[in-house]
Amino acid sequence: AQKYQMRLIGPNCMGFYCPETKLSFFPALPTESGPLGLISQSGSIANIMAFSAMLKGIHFSKSISYGNSIDLGFNDFLEYLGDDPKTRVIACYVEGLKDGRRFIELVKKIKKPIIIWKVGVTPAGSKAAHSHTGSLCGNNTLWDTIFNQYGLIRVYNLEEMVSMIQTFINPMPVRARRVAIISGPGGPAVSSADACEMNNLTLADMTEDSKMQLKEYIPEFGSSMSNPIDISLQSTFDPVLEKKTYEIVGSDPNVDMLLIYLTMLTPRYKDLIQLQERISKPIAIVSALDVNVSQDSFNKNVQRSFIHIRAKKVPSIINELNQNGISVHPNENLASKALYRIYNYYNNPKKSVL
Amino acid sequence: AQKYQMRLIGPNCMGFYCPETKLSFFPALPTESGPLGLISQSGSIANIMAFSAMLKGIHFSKSISYGNSIDLGFNDFLEYLGDDPKTRVIACYVEGLKDGRRFIELVKKIKKPIIIWKVGVTPAGSKAAHSHTGSLCGNNTLWDTIFNQYGLIRVYNLEEMVSMIQTFINPMPVRARRVAIISGPGGPAVSSADACEMNNLTLADMTEDSKMQLKEYIPEFGSSMSNPIDISLQSTFDPVLEKKTYEIVGSDPNVDMLLIYLTMLTPRYKDLIQLQERISKPIAIVSALDVNVSQDSFNKNVQRSFIHIRAKKVPSIINELNQNGISVHPNENLASKALYRIYNYYNNPKKSVL
Repeated sequence: AQKYQMRLIGPNCMGFYCPETKLSFFPALPTESGPLGLISQSGSIANIMAFSAMLKGIHFSKSISYGNSIDLGFNDFLEYLGDDPKTRVIACYVEGLKDGRRFIELVKKIKKPIIIWKVGVTPAGSKAAHSHTGSLCGNNTLWDTIFNQYGLIRVYNLEEMVSMIQTFINPMPVRARRVAIISGPGGPAVSSADACEMNNLTLADMTEDSKMQLKEYIPEFGSSMSNPIDISLQSTFDPVLEKKTYEIVGSDPNVDMLLIYLTMLTPRYKDLIQLQERISKPIAIVSALDVNVSQDSFNKNVQRSFIHIRAKKVPSIINELNQNGISVHPNENLASKALYRIYNYYNNPKKSVL
Repeated sequence: AQKYQMRLIGPNCMGFYCPETKLSFFPALPTESGPLGLISQSGSIANIMAFSAMLKGIHFSKSISYGNSIDLGFNDFLEYLGDDPKTRVIACYVEGLKDGRRFIELVKKIKKPIIIWKVGVTPAGSKAAHSHTGSLCGNNTLWDTIFNQYGLIRVYNLEEMVSMIQTFINPMPVRARRVAIISGPGGPAVSSADACEMNNLTLADMTEDSKMQLKEYIPEFGSSMSNPIDISLQSTFDPVLEKKTYEIVGSDPNVDMLLIYLTMLTPRYKDLIQLQERISKPIAIVSALDVNVSQDSFNKNVQRSFIHIRAKKVPSIINELNQNGISVHPNENLASKALYRIYNYYNNPKKSVL
């Protein structure tokens, strides 16, 4: 190949998937285009990601499975996606890297969020990676330093990767990390406060004016007007209460970002998009019950008690939320981590690129 | 109430839910009975849990929402469930405790797994809990010590709680923590090795005999015969390969427990139940694509390329797996944490109860 100046990808990979040009690993993959560029050393991950992303309404600009990289490697594809106008977020599954210096130069230069699932970070994992693609993985402490220094977004598994991709599809810039938590259920209000504190956020101290306004709407029993705001079970039956709370808390000048704990997605998600358009602050939703839940799984009694969104509509709703700077997470740990990541992305003192 | 020797529950709670006796918070809750006893200070959590558990095929013996506990409190219900023959696993959502000494006496005595979601563990969370149910939360380091010393199972959110409940519905006793990882996709084999090491497990060193047997079945290209075992993409098309691998690896005397990374649940889950019946070792499954995924969400092309399990069957399948000592997790971190928890449950040197 060298002799004829051809470039090679692989071996041990699946090549390219580019919905726009109808290039695909398998005929079954989705054909919609989107803002996500994926670089994966593992072909299986690239394949699973196509489906996992689809279930959250996330679509690809390009997905590249590059395997053992005998010629073209990770850095080449990173440089390409960094320049690609169709790619807004870059996600990577990496076992080992061949040219660390070039990698550092690239991440300093690329002005897009880069999410990295770096495996082989423990001795056992490193050994496993070596037998999978022959990669040498390097030291975990070194990787941690690089992640922090260059504002890279580190994830540890597929679930976190999907969560952080959603977060960076259209993140709202933010200068401080004062979060307000709004929850209908009171219990998760408390555990979300724990999660925010564990993830380096601070709980916003709302203005007296906001608290006064809240008092007019929120029933006194079983609720809390100070952050975390617990709008009580009443909110399930009174959609205006929920909407009013979003507006008052979201508009508070002491609030930089919002964590909203929902029991499940309802058609009222449109209220959040309207709010977001007005306030332009990062919002992370925890959807406690699986948002992909099928109506099939519920018995008729249960169905009657909820305003359901049909399972097949969920991906397009999540997509709509993501495009508007709102991400949806399976738990409060990932939601608060997502908010901190946005803050860190826009305020990393060691990062010169933004 | 004191005057007439009546006992009170609450205030600020939903009371009891007991499917066997048709006592319920709401008419919509599931009517099947099962092995899970839940004690929740938050009424909303008790309610959400009823639905979250149902989606994983988990059913309740009793669920108790007890609120601010002016009379009957957490310890009273813990003692009751500890003695209740219909309850095999006890899960708890707790903000604050009133009598720490009695709590310690109870957890020393109760010979059942106790899973605790303790909130208010940070200053922000503690303050929030105080305004929710008036609880004083106590020091996190103290709680950590108690969790470790008495073999309690600590979780931080609903997702982890459901994961650990599944794990302890019928856990298989185990004396050592040597785990074997089996994965079709090669990438997750590596990240699962990382996750196991981070969660205090060691990767089993299989016997030469097992490795020889594996070599007869597993194709040489794109696979790995040493632990983590990567059976390659081939496994997707060749169910016998997968089944044979489970049998060889599961029967290896150096293997104490199994972590199996699947792309999604297929009807082949029955192979795992058969294996489990024969080897009686803990098995944790990671199901990378949402097991509650509805066929509705997929386009026809995608449907054709997978052997699907209909969404409404998923809860009963997970229930069947759980009853056989197999748990299903959303990522490799929770799966390896689950396996470590089982090991720790049966081998906690400071715990005298087992």
